[in-house]
Amino acid sequence: MKIYFSGSIRGGEPDKGWFQALIRHISRHGEVLTEDSFGYSLDEENRFDDALIYERDMDWLRMADAVVAEVSAPSLGVGYEIAKAEEWGKPLLLLYREQPGCRPSAMLNGNKSLEMLVFREDADALKAVEDFLATVKRGRDSASP
Amino acid sequence: MKIYFSGSIRGGEPDKGWFQALIRHISRHGEVLTEDSFGYSLDEENRFDDALIYERDMDWLRMADAVVAEVSAPSLGVGYEIAKAEEWGKPLLLLYREQPGCRPSAMLNGNKSLEMLVFREDADALKAVEDFLATVKRGRDSASP
Repeated sequence: MKIYFSGSIRGGEPDKGWFQALIRHISRHGEVLTEDSFGYSLDEENRFDDALIYERDMDWLRMADAVVAEVSAPSLGVGYEIAKAEEWGKPLLLLYREQPGCRPSAMLNGNKSLEMLVFREDADALKAVEDFLATVKRGRDSASP
Repeated sequence: MKIYFSGSIRGGEPDKGWFQALIRHISRHGEVLTEDSFGYSLDEENRFDDALIYERDMDWLRMADAVVAEVSAPSLGVGYEIAKAEEWGKPLLLLYREQPGCRPSAMLNGNKSLEMLVFREDADALKAVEDFLATVKRGRDSASP
């Protein structure tokens, strides 16, 4: 399986340790196409060519079997990618960590065709990822000849 | 003309004074469908029903003749709306205010089919909005019987 992990990079402050834990967890189920995108400092990342990032990420998103998006931090790119994943009919799981005084994006939380887990404990999010990817895999296996 | 203005609400800190100035400016050219969405405090806004916000905003976006998105602050909803506007072929202008140490979203800036103005002075953004809406209007007038 090819899995697209989406999370804030230049947007709201990303929780890098948590992203890495998620990526490691997702890797047990297949290839995380975007794994390397989260290994750079913001300074390094800012030197990349935006058109190349856009083209590469859209290619990866097109080829992905499933998409996991971390939506605890605001990000224009993540919002854009979620809409594209929805347009292209990709199985999609959104993860939002509860934060005092904050609410998830209304445009994502209010869209009944999107599946969002609001979580407090890392373990709950990891379990949801596990279940989500197992379901996607079962769907793929049963669709194969 | 019906114009959809998109900007951060629950995402990165919105510049409310600037959003109001933009909305006033856009109003000279037509109806700003989302005008009232930017008149609430975050506490008030957080009490709204997300499904109603989502349905209402998608209806407005569908009926819009043009979309102006302020992308200086990160926002999942704004990123989502930009992708939908692009999918539905809406004329779209993105406005990004230069900020030291920051860069616009790679997914938006790297997408060559999107038009983004990177500006320093309010007047430059207002002028770009003016030109953009005049162009949309000319396109509509010449397409009318």
